[in-house]
Amino acid sequence: MKLLRVTVWNEFIHERQNDDVRKVYPNGIHQTIADALGRHPELAVKTATLQETDQGLGQSGLDSTDVLLYWGHAAHDEVSEEAVLRLQKRVLDGMGLIVLHSGHYSKIFKRLMGTTCALRYREAGERERIWNVNPGHPIAEGIGEYIELEQSEMYGEPFGIPHPEEQVFISWFQGGEVFRGGSCWTRGSGRIFYFSPGHEIYPIYHNPQIQRVLFNAVCWVRPQGRRAEVPLHVPVENALEKISAQGAVMHDREGRLTR
Amino acid sequence: MKLLRVTVWNEFIHERQNDDVRKVYPNGIHQTIADALGRHPELAVKTATLQETDQGLGQSGLDSTDVLLYWGHAAHDEVSEEAVLRLQKRVLDGMGLIVLHSGHYSKIFKRLMGTTCALRYREAGERERIWNVNPGHPIAEGIGEYIELEQSEMYGEPFGIPHPEEQVFISWFQGGEVFRGGSCWTRGSGRIFYFSPGHEIYPIYHNPQIQRVLFNAVCWVRPQGRRAEVPLHVPVENALEKISAQGAVMHDREGRLTR
Amino acid sequence: MKLLRVTVWNEFIHERQNDDVRKVYPNGIHQTIADALGRHPELAVKTATLQETDQGLGQSGLDSTDVLLYWGHAAHDEVSEEAVLRLQKRVLDGMGLIVLHSGHYSKIFKRLMGTTCALRYREAGERERIWNVNPGHPIAEGIGEYIELEQSEMYGEPFGIPHPEEQVFISWFQGGEVFRGGSCWTRGSGRIFYFSPGHEIYPIYHNPQIQRVLFNAVCWVRPQGRRAEVPLHVPVENALEKISAQGAVMHDREGRLTR
Amino acid sequence: MKLLRVTVWNEFIHERQNDDVRKVYPNGIHQTIADALGRHPELAVKTATLQETDQGLGQSGLDSTDVLLYWGHAAHDEVSEEAVLRLQKRVLDGMGLIVLHSGHYSKIFKRLMGTTCALRYREAGERERIWNVNPGHPIAEGIGEYIELEQSEMYGEPFGIPHPEEQVFISWFQGGEVFRGGSCWTRGSGRIFYFSPGHEIYPIYHNPQIQRVLFNAVCWVRPQGRRAEVPLHVPVENALEKISAQGAVMHDREGRLTR
Repeated sequence: MKLLRVTVWNEFIHERQNDDVRKVYPNGIHQTIADALGRHPELAVKTATLQETDQGLGQSGLDSTDVLLYWGHAAHDEVSEEAVLRLQKRVLDGMGLIVLHSGHYSKIFKRLMGTTCALRYREAGERERIWNVNPGHPIAEGIGEYIELEQSEMYGEPFGIPHPEEQVFISWFQGGEVFRGGSCWTRGSGRIFYFSPGHEIYPIYHNPQIQRVLFNAVCWVRPQGRRAEVPLHVPVENALEKISAQGAVMHDREGRLTR
Repeated sequence: MKLLRVTVWNEFIHERQNDDVRKVYPNGIHQTIADALGRHPELAVKTATLQETDQGLGQSGLDSTDVLLYWGHAAHDEVSEEAVLRLQKRVLDGMGLIVLHSGHYSKIFKRLMGTTCALRYREAGERERIWNVNPGHPIAEGIGEYIELEQSEMYGEPFGIPHPEEQVFISWFQGGEVFRGGSCWTRGSGRIFYFSPGHEIYPIYHNPQIQRVLFNAVCWVRPQGRRAEVPLHVPVENALEKISAQGAVMHDREGRLTR
Repeated sequence: MKLLRVTVWNEFIHERQNDDVRKVYPNGIHQTIADALGRHPELAVKTATLQETDQGLGQSGLDSTDVLLYWGHAAHDEVSEEAVLRLQKRVLDGMGLIVLHSGHYSKIFKRLMGTTCALRYREAGERERIWNVNPGHPIAEGIGEYIELEQSEMYGEPFGIPHPEEQVFISWFQGGEVFRGGSCWTRGSGRIFYFSPGHEIYPIYHNPQIQRVLFNAVCWVRPQGRRAEVPLHVPVENALEKISAQGAVMHDREGRLTR
Repeated sequence: MKLLRVTVWNEFIHERQNDDVRKVYPNGIHQTIADALGRHPELAVKTATLQETDQGLGQSGLDSTDVLLYWGHAAHDEVSEEAVLRLQKRVLDGMGLIVLHSGHYSKIFKRLMGTTCALRYREAGERERIWNVNPGHPIAEGIGEYIELEQSEMYGEPFGIPHPEEQVFISWFQGGEVFRGGSCWTRGSGRIFYFSPGHEIYPIYHNPQIQRVLFNAVCWVRPQGRRAEVPLHVPVENALEKISAQGAVMHDREGRLTR
């Protein structure tokens, strides 16, 4: 069986600089997630961080990745424009992308969505209840009516995203807000899933149900088909139906604009 | 009655450099479109071009525009990143945007879509039949079963766009292709309509039915509501439901991340 | 100015049989809503109830209605199949439909959605906070970040609907649930808005913000274009491109299937 | 490995009554499709027809079906309301449904869509080119830029369907029309794919590429998750957050409406 190649990318800053975070994720959020996913024999999981060569987002690494999970918070601005463009191209060509928690504000998510991706937030360790609004969706497989987190950061509406193509989860917060925290999109040949739980100060990625959602999401965003080979110039003589050229032209025979 | 403020933006290059195009649009594509829209008393129409200050996309001009039509082809790369970001922000804040023909490859359209926006093309002066697949849609008001153009540039599938939120027109081409040439999206508080007919070598914007679609589209993309004021930090004491903070924190009282 | 013709339909049962409901809506829910909408001079508002001829859903009444609001709860089963089919046809031909509260379980809503339209519910007079998740949408015009109802019936996810085409409101409930209570669809040439608040035991339709949403929704679902004239048989000699018939046929010259 | 249980349902009328059709499908359209799908070892394929007990749509047969393909044309009216309701419930509970060609006008498709499902048509044995507009979609796997059929029945826009949730194919016709002939929806926990090619007078289901699409579609619509257990009454004392009941009530303790 061909293994699905998964890369868990993390900016890996808070876990090194903040004692509270280090206690929760001593080897980094990426390692906790990679360990959880690695228990599934059909996945080949590796990790990458901002501190590595090419910010952990080099071409060869991306080319050998089927699904990338992305966690960032403090260093969104430090991710280079080149890395973002490489990532975007790989997604459009078919790589699955799972954007986690504060990754909502990453360059790559904003680039793929085209919107602000802004939201309302509060850090009070309050209760979050992640409702499964789509029990028939593959990402909800094995999940009951809801997942309850005793301590979570509030992310609230309005969330500055394009209308999701599928809605899997909507969160309820003790302090009074709601949030579309499990949302799906397709961009080019790539699938994207945003999953909001995962504030670094709480042990959310240690939760087995959260780990199950991540595994389901990896399976759902995995590359589905091929990428489109475009742009494509079609010379008149290659038209599928026989036609003859008429009128003036702006392009040369290779389809290049003549200015 | 408050007039809807419309700006027709054009890169305005081919009409000045190419005799064939100049014959069709002696004062520029923007002027032909502006003249057509200007016959509607509820619109206040102005034009702007790449050659003007701030590339015709300065902040004050955008701030006084409710709907912007965008035509570009040869000079997409010359539009500055700053202009693109200003345009994007205005759209997200509610300004309507109509992207025309070769504008599919403009920086602003690719930025708002997040995809390649690539397509198949052929310049043979062939017949295009623009089918009205959504007779109940406001953009199709007054349009019959189809619009027929005796000479058009072929734009064909696959078109590298996110799945449209509404489909108004799909084109048939004599040479054998189809194209989703009338497509709708919402980004933030702004509406976007892409309309594919409009190759500069043919008199397409002189066609009364095409002009009708443009007018309908202006009305449909007009600003609808208000923009969301986000991101928004909510201090614990301002939570709508009474809660008390628990656990460690990563943000200060103003919601700034402490690194 | 041509007035928009609005009909508020109500099964009108609980207000006549239950003292608690009668106190809140002495003349029926329909009258309270009609009074609120009637203050807008651009609307011509009438009411209809299940007790009237043709269950208040006769052909001539529907034909002279641009937008119909529908409230039902106890008597869904009593609405005749004929009335449902008339309603459905009018919506597909362009009439706007606003389905209110327990109307989620009406025959017409289930018919237009194709799904169970089932939900979770609890009647405890608890607090509901209706979040405006789409501030740029016309139905949210004039509405702030949320509408708060001190007493409401809980409607909770999963809600058995097709994925909404646009999401305007999502509700938070004190008891711990969330609900997609402000959702939009298009069916044929007709627009549909479902709005969940409105349990008959609480004075929800007296709330000015709720009334504002209803007015906005009436404007949004109003007929937009024309209906499609189909099915349509196209004889070979009427094809838009010249073709000649080939092979055996199953239909006669008028397009009737020969069995 | 657990086999996917597929049922190919056919009204099976024209193949028995019309010589031209019998030559193309001597054992019925269902048998040709079943033979093609049966070559995939992961599928367990059976057939059913209108002439069988319970019209081939009995409860036990449906309960042991994961994916049902549906072909009908002449006898849509003969399918009983009970069979339609059984089918609808199975789809909402998770069974995949593939509606073929003239099945666009079946009771079950109209019931799940909520719309007319009407279209434009012409039977002239003309050329159809089925464009793959979504190369990254699983249903397009192994399919190139397009599938060409030398002889097909024209189905044209406007097609009376709700906006598809995903668009996989759009057809071009020699006579001048276009058609959204490969479209996806979700209803409840069930996935639906409509695929337009398949007029009984042409050997379309013998085409290996068409067979590939059918196989891909079977895989794509296969049951994904579980069905939602609703409606569900939540007594106040079972609320997830502690609340106390306030105000009058319309329901008894079991959630039954008291009239």
